[in-house]
Amino acid sequence: MIYETGAGVVKDKLNVHLVAHTHDDVGWLKTVDQYYVGSNNSIQGACVQNVLDSMVPALLRDKNRKFIYVEQAFFQRWWRDQSEATQTIVKGFVSSGQLELINGGWCMHDEAAPHYIDMIDQTTYGHKFIKQQFNVTPRIGWQIDPFGHSAVQAYLLGAEVGFDSLFFGRIDYQDRAKRKADKHLEVIWRASKSLGSSSQIFAGAFPENYEPPSGFYFEVNDDSNIVQDDVNLFDYNVQERVNDFVAAAVSQANITRSNHVMWTMGTDFKYQYAESWFRNMDKLIHYVNKDGRVNALYSTPSIYTDAKYAETDSWPLKEEDYFPYASDINAYWTGYFTSRPGLKGYVRMLSGYYLAARQLEVLKGRNKAGPTTDSLADALGIAQHHDGVSGTSQQHVANDYAKRLAIGHKEAEAVVAESLAGMVSSKSVHGSSATHFQQCPLLNISYCPPTEADLSSGKKLVVVVYNSLGWKRSDVIRLPVVSENIAVYDSSGKQVESQLLPVVKDSIALRNYYATAYTGKSPSSTPKFTLAFTASVPPLGFSTYTIQSTKKPASNFVKQALYKHTGIGKGDVEVGTGNLKLIYSKSEGKLSQYVNSQRSIEASVSQSYLYYAGFDGTTGLQASGAYIFRPNGSYSIDSQEQNITVLRGPIYEEVHQKINPWIYQITRVYKNKEHAEVEFTVGPIPIKDRVGKEIVTQITTNIKSNKKFYTDSNGRDFLERIRDYRTDWNLEVNQRVAGNYYPINLGMYLKDDKSELSLLVDRSIGGSSIVDGQLELMLHRRLLYDDGKGVAEALNETVCVGDDCRGLAVQGKYYLRIDPVGEGAKWRRSYGQEIYSPLLLAFTEQDGNEGTNFQVSTFTGMDPSYSLPDNVALLTLQELEDGRVLLRLAHLYEVGEDKDLSVLTSVELKKLFAKRKITKLSEMSLSANQGRVEMEKKRLVWKAEGSKDDETAPPRGGPVDPLKLVVELAPMEIRTFIVTVSKTLSRRLVSPDLSLHSL
Amino acid sequence: MIYETGAGVVKDKLNVHLVAHTHDDVGWLKTVDQYYVGSNNSIQGACVQNVLDSMVPALLRDKNRKFIYVEQAFFQRWWRDQSEATQTIVKGFVSSGQLELINGGWCMHDEAAPHYIDMIDQTTYGHKFIKQQFNVTPRIGWQIDPFGHSAVQAYLLGAEVGFDSLFFGRIDYQDRAKRKADKHLEVIWRASKSLGSSSQIFAGAFPENYEPPSGFYFEVNDDSNIVQDDVNLFDYNVQERVNDFVAAAVSQANITRSNHVMWTMGTDFKYQYAESWFRNMDKLIHYVNKDGRVNALYSTPSIYTDAKYAETDSWPLKEEDYFPYASDINAYWTGYFTSRPGLKGYVRMLSGYYLAARQLEVLKGRNKAGPTTDSLADALGIAQHHDGVSGTSQQHVANDYAKRLAIGHKEAEAVVAESLAGMVSSKSVHGSSATHFQQCPLLNISYCPPTEADLSSGKKLVVVVYNSLGWKRSDVIRLPVVSENIAVYDSSGKQVESQLLPVVKDSIALRNYYATAYTGKSPSSTPKFTLAFTASVPPLGFSTYTIQSTKKPASNFVKQALYKHTGIGKGDVEVGTGNLKLIYSKSEGKLSQYVNSQRSIEASVSQSYLYYAGFDGTTGLQASGAYIFRPNGSYSIDSQEQNITVLRGPIYEEVHQKINPWIYQITRVYKNKEHAEVEFTVGPIPIKDRVGKEIVTQITTNIKSNKKFYTDSNGRDFLERIRDYRTDWNLEVNQRVAGNYYPINLGMYLKDDKSELSLLVDRSIGGSSIVDGQLELMLHRRLLYDDGKGVAEALNETVCVGDDCRGLAVQGKYYLRIDPVGEGAKWRRSYGQEIYSPLLLAFTEQDGNEGTNFQVSTFTGMDPSYSLPDNVALLTLQELEDGRVLLRLAHLYEVGEDKDLSVLTSVELKKLFAKRKITKLSEMSLSANQGRVEMEKKRLVWKAEGSKDDETAPPRGGPVDPLKLVVELAPMEIRTFIVTVSKTLSRRLVSPDLSLHSL
Repeated sequence: MIYETGAGVVKDKLNVHLVAHTHDDVGWLKTVDQYYVGSNNSIQGACVQNVLDSMVPALLRDKNRKFIYVEQAFFQRWWRDQSEATQTIVKGFVSSGQLELINGGWCMHDEAAPHYIDMIDQTTYGHKFIKQQFNVTPRIGWQIDPFGHSAVQAYLLGAEVGFDSLFFGRIDYQDRAKRKADKHLEVIWRASKSLGSSSQIFAGAFPENYEPPSGFYFEVNDDSNIVQDDVNLFDYNVQERVNDFVAAAVSQANITRSNHVMWTMGTDFKYQYAESWFRNMDKLIHYVNKDGRVNALYSTPSIYTDAKYAETDSWPLKEEDYFPYASDINAYWTGYFTSRPGLKGYVRMLSGYYLAARQLEVLKGRNKAGPTTDSLADALGIAQHHDGVSGTSQQHVANDYAKRLAIGHKEAEAVVAESLAGMVSSKSVHGSSATHFQQCPLLNISYCPPTEADLSSGKKLVVVVYNSLGWKRSDVIRLPVVSENIAVYDSSGKQVESQLLPVVKDSIALRNYYATAYTGKSPSSTPKFTLAFTASVPPLGFSTYTIQSTKKPASNFVKQALYKHTGIGKGDVEVGTGNLKLIYSKSEGKLSQYVNSQRSIEASVSQSYLYYAGFDGTTGLQASGAYIFRPNGSYSIDSQEQNITVLRGPIYEEVHQKINPWIYQITRVYKNKEHAEVEFTVGPIPIKDRVGKEIVTQITTNIKSNKKFYTDSNGRDFLERIRDYRTDWNLEVNQRVAGNYYPINLGMYLKDDKSELSLLVDRSIGGSSIVDGQLELMLHRRLLYDDGKGVAEALNETVCVGDDCRGLAVQGKYYLRIDPVGEGAKWRRSYGQEIYSPLLLAFTEQDGNEGTNFQVSTFTGMDPSYSLPDNVALLTLQELEDGRVLLRLAHLYEVGEDKDLSVLTSVELKKLFAKRKITKLSEMSLSANQGRVEMEKKRLVWKAEGSKDDETAPPRGGPVDPLKLVVELAPMEIRTFIVTVSKTLSRRLVSPDLSLHSL
Repeated sequence: MIYETGAGVVKDKLNVHLVAHTHDDVGWLKTVDQYYVGSNNSIQGACVQNVLDSMVPALLRDKNRKFIYVEQAFFQRWWRDQSEATQTIVKGFVSSGQLELINGGWCMHDEAAPHYIDMIDQTTYGHKFIKQQFNVTPRIGWQIDPFGHSAVQAYLLGAEVGFDSLFFGRIDYQDRAKRKADKHLEVIWRASKSLGSSSQIFAGAFPENYEPPSGFYFEVNDDSNIVQDDVNLFDYNVQERVNDFVAAAVSQANITRSNHVMWTMGTDFKYQYAESWFRNMDKLIHYVNKDGRVNALYSTPSIYTDAKYAETDSWPLKEEDYFPYASDINAYWTGYFTSRPGLKGYVRMLSGYYLAARQLEVLKGRNKAGPTTDSLADALGIAQHHDGVSGTSQQHVANDYAKRLAIGHKEAEAVVAESLAGMVSSKSVHGSSATHFQQCPLLNISYCPPTEADLSSGKKLVVVVYNSLGWKRSDVIRLPVVSENIAVYDSSGKQVESQLLPVVKDSIALRNYYATAYTGKSPSSTPKFTLAFTASVPPLGFSTYTIQSTKKPASNFVKQALYKHTGIGKGDVEVGTGNLKLIYSKSEGKLSQYVNSQRSIEASVSQSYLYYAGFDGTTGLQASGAYIFRPNGSYSIDSQEQNITVLRGPIYEEVHQKINPWIYQITRVYKNKEHAEVEFTVGPIPIKDRVGKEIVTQITTNIKSNKKFYTDSNGRDFLERIRDYRTDWNLEVNQRVAGNYYPINLGMYLKDDKSELSLLVDRSIGGSSIVDGQLELMLHRRLLYDDGKGVAEALNETVCVGDDCRGLAVQGKYYLRIDPVGEGAKWRRSYGQEIYSPLLLAFTEQDGNEGTNFQVSTFTGMDPSYSLPDNVALLTLQELEDGRVLLRLAHLYEVGEDKDLSVLTSVELKKLFAKRKITKLSEMSLSANQGRVEMEKKRLVWKAEGSKDDETAPPRGGPVDPLKLVVELAPMEIRTFIVTVSKTLSRRLVSPDLSLHSL
């Protein structure tokens, strides 16, 4: 039997686009490798090898059959396993369009928890392979499973990548109902206020999910009614199935504009045996088209998009984003904004590290033999998956993400150490005596063996401080040390101000437990003090400091530091030696006022902790779990002791508060910073009462915010949120807390006509403003029931040393500042960059009293006179395999965000690449897989309903003059370039010419 | 990665033969068509199309990969769906040995319930296609799943088919344990006492089942630990898996002779995606052989058999069979011997019908345009499946078997009707006025519209009586009629003796209900009488009788018939007008004596009913169910009324006993027959007490049988059974009843030194002798719990008319005879043939008083002077597609079974094919797919331990002299021929020359 499967689009008929797809989570119930090879099937029957292996003969069998594939983390594993013969066949599929690679990132990233830089990196990583192997560029965004959809996804990872459309499955059930009634599932999504119509995209939400219509599942062993068209056998059912098909098509057409509907023929890890689907789709196409009522065709999202584009002039306009996502009345998927805060913190830390490491890889020259940053790229790419950093994988999978990150980190550390060693060019007659740098990934818990060394024998500790920002920067370095008899010197040998504060008991306990858990052995020493000093580092460069023992305690600093204030009584305690003062009430032991006289801020402010009880799932009702936030009442957490301990010093002061046995908080006020830094340690969350708990902190002010607050989209644009309100529909409020939660990556703020309260975060978490003037952040959650959304585990993280397992404690920071209204953006943007890219520290021990043996102890990769403008960040500086350099520059401000900085700005590439000649500069699409001009030429130009034809898109930076090499950037613009620089590598290898380390 | 998979057998190493196989039930939980196309997957995920489709690319991928396929009912469905290109590829697989077709019957038949003729037919049917399409002959018997193994399977369907070995999975657990300890799993099975070593076969029972060793399941989505050999991924486990492999291999080697073990890599409906298995087997072979401790290879049972043959000189001897099968202490698989007795009866009825219909197809000439007997062949072939006639399928599947049989039957009826119409050559000037014959498949329930016609208007009913036996035969015809004013005439116009007995009330109720259930409408008339007369029919021929109305009731017959004897009182009632008299006790209303003065038999005999309560499965213990017989006590069923009703007549007399409201019994004693015929109607079995029941009848005599009794093997050889004893091991008796049950297809008997009691049956049922002198038959069973062996349904059959569903009633017959010892075989063999091949009746209505309008009203296909010898049966006479004739002749007696008939005998083919010239005669293997000589030349000659080298095989018939054309047959020998006869077909079509209807 030959089936007629070659139908294309037929005009004036309802066209049913059958899109054969598999949705392959890059880790979820199983690890990415287990999914790939198909092991651990007792958890989930899923093997990506089967999918791709079986695709090949299925597509060979009929050239009309089409398939799409999405996740490059899997596809690339498979590709490298294939014989040349198979690769040739598959290349044929791709070039003929039988196989379309869409989305094309390393994973289908989450849209709530990832930072936009991670989203760009992982997309670029996947697109690069596709380009290399198949010379194609994906046209379609395919975010079918993430639990809500971000503005940044639409405009930045959609339009700016060159995608013609974006499809997804999950939007709020109320929103979906209205859109179905209005035929507004498919829209023009204009998600960036700043870039407007220049960055809009056609976006389609599926009517139900990303599965086939009910009864059209044809996976091997699935129980849909297969098409039985052999009249010689019983149960012949062609007419029945054709009728089913037509009915489902018409039903979908009734909620869809135009004569085209898409059927997503597949779902999670389907096509284990692809033929079972195609066999039935062949028959459906054949018999449905013979029937003639509707037209069925093998299609892809590209074909579907083109058909939509051809047929309809304009589409409804959608702005902002699709957060938060609720799938049902009590099922708000806002828990995962915070789920696994430890993993979220690790991912964010490595994201910044990866950025810095690639810079150092460029400065040193990529080492083809390794180490490279590629394994970190891979691990970070995998971790961005929508069950990765989202916190919604099973525990063993979360462990796998962490393990991959640790391996990638380790290799990247080697890159960093090699690069710094090369750049400092230590004076040595022995060729092999390159400096060996150590780094301290566990510095956050005061574990750092090199700084804990005993220097009394005359050794000195050398600290190289690298700054990956494009601006000169001063920041306080805090290091655990064992002796009070030490002093800090800069590279000129001048002693710099330093401060020693005692390491408190609670910190030591945490440090010892976690250091043992992570390193596998107990720390051999115990730090007594935290040494602090201010490092000053040029842009894209480093400075060097040395720490040496002294005969006696370093002057008066220690004494002052040890001054403790434990107060019950009347009056206030004032903390802070600079512009910012925090005022604590002695009687309550609590923060009461925030004062910055320099900026005329004097605000009442309080801070408290509470927990939401996780809804119990035993009754079959919706529980709170990895995905879902469903609070069952809130319970305030009062400090059990009203004592506060203040440690004072010249560089910063800190307030220690032991809120309860499992919450410890340190608030730091730096002399030279106008924000407060709050370091919280939450956990182990007690569960003896069999109640899961979700811990939040609330910052309360008198600001009359009138229901409004602002949260960032993946750390980039800020979106206005209005409590109990949605722009697109009349919200029926079911969950007053969970329904107002939003993902926070950079920070959040609220304001009135006088002032604004901003919080910045060090990782992705959930936050809201449940009452006016108040912001809240969910810091940690520990839950005892599965929430029934698939992960099949309770989110109950523990950490073990041997058999001693405890609930996971999470340590993190958030940053608080109050500004006069309109002035907060500068801090949020600039300091947000510093949080994302902390100073990178490398340590080495040297002998002798004289300075270091470095030939170079302070350095900038740029022209020493140059610094990037305040409104520009260097997102990417990365050497490609062919030696060219990938460069991304980002304007940090939105239109209207700051009166000075929300303007067109420019970067002088000649000064950025100070010592190398740029021989070629190609502006690229965001994922760097095609020329920007070419992309814009190809990309479909959609029209939103109600748009004026004469409406002009916001301005963007103009073309780069190849002689001047000045890059203009408009607000929120990100520009991507591939830069060819003069090769002077060989000279560098021969004679270490210092200047050549510069760009 | 290229895997080295080309290993062959390696001497002096342990060779692990990986046999990739799928076990595809030809109906079980789903119907054969549902399994083929993969519908109804909610019941079981299983699609044979997937298996075979996915096999093709998997075998193409590596020419070392091998696969076996068994069930032709599936393979042929698939084959006809394939493109020529695929067929060419698959032919290549078969000829290279990559794909080996083994067993090769239409199904993997059951070994308890099928008749040996059905086993031969379904095997022949499958082998024919294999020969036609691939020109190969299967070498291996592969009965891996049937629940016990029969002697006939081993020697007849094994050795006589030309198989070199036979493999199976299920033997008694005690037997298995001993064989493992003794390394006796693999034996030389010499199953025929008569044919001895000339029909022995190498037979291997698997150590566990037919699945892979634990942990080596590689079905898509299975949870075995796959071989992860990619060092770039996590969970690399090659050494671990190699160690597992070696351990499993060594463990099997410890219970196996020689250096070869077989791993059955597959199980039920596996290889849905074949690549998932081969991918892992590739790796195992590669790494295991690299490891070197054992040698792993892609193999087939043929390769394994050859390796076994090459390596070991002689093997343990096994005689008899492997019944009954127990899988556990309380799990005796002896319930299915009776499960679904209605289906079993239908299959047996059609088996005989198919034999006759093929004869008539030969006599008429096969009609290429149809109708043919092929659809009946197909349906019967499917029904022989070990979950078909075994009664162990789900109800909807049992319905499907019945539906297929009904369709096949319907078409075969048309063949029969056409053939008879052609042969009677009705006198008519109109070419189109061929006689239209009706048949009455529901005659057993007295439903036969043609005989129920009102003949008073002068029409006459013509009955053509066809005899498919090779002997002349007289038998009583019983027909339902509506009038007493009728008479019967033979073809010469002479009135023949007839008899009318009233149709009793109970029969009418049953008739009306079931006729409505089967035909979909209520019968329009109600018969009043059963007309009986004796028909006399030549061998392979027919006679014609007419029934006409008379003016008055037919003489005295009716009156005499209506004489009823209902006795409570003293003394006896004697029933029977011929040699046999049954004596009933008036006081008890029961049979008390069996008297045959002619043979000096005067035996006390009683008959009773009882039921076993089916063990309840609610406690998780082993329940009685479709497979398992697990009685929970026995309960006698006493007649509620002691009245018996005797209907008397000159041809036969019958005793009616209403045992209880749901058991009705009629015992018939025919004037000219020396056995009693017992017609039982059992059901609906009541279940209101929530107790399942298994109904048996017991015949008790004084014969001192000393624990011994004899049951047939598939209706062919009789095997001695000893209560609570097994020949091969010391039986630990766990189930005193269930453990002594055996399948009965032809009959059973017991004896002492004076006499023997024989029972013959009309279908396959279970039977035993639980006490000396007594035989029991299980007639029906209705159970309320699933027995946990897979079918997942309770065996609770109902029949419905509209919404009125009732427990299934079963009507059947058994036949009882007592002979002087040593004289019973003649009756068992000869009358057994008559039961299997009842006279075939065709009816037509004609006008006029004069005889029929047939030109031919009596006929034999053979030389009129010829008859087959008493010890020979014509098993097959069938026209092949190419016009040649398939002929099978069977000696009916075993060595020593009868003093006169257990001798070499001969058949004169010239007289069998009286009017056609045999131009060529080829003796074939049993399944007719190869020449007998060629087969014997190829077939491996095995040696049993302890056999004397000079031991001579029993004699067989010698070669056939092509001039004499006389076929000799030794005891139990079956000889198969393909006969080419002179083609006179064209002449026949032109002028109907009567003689040409003869063979």
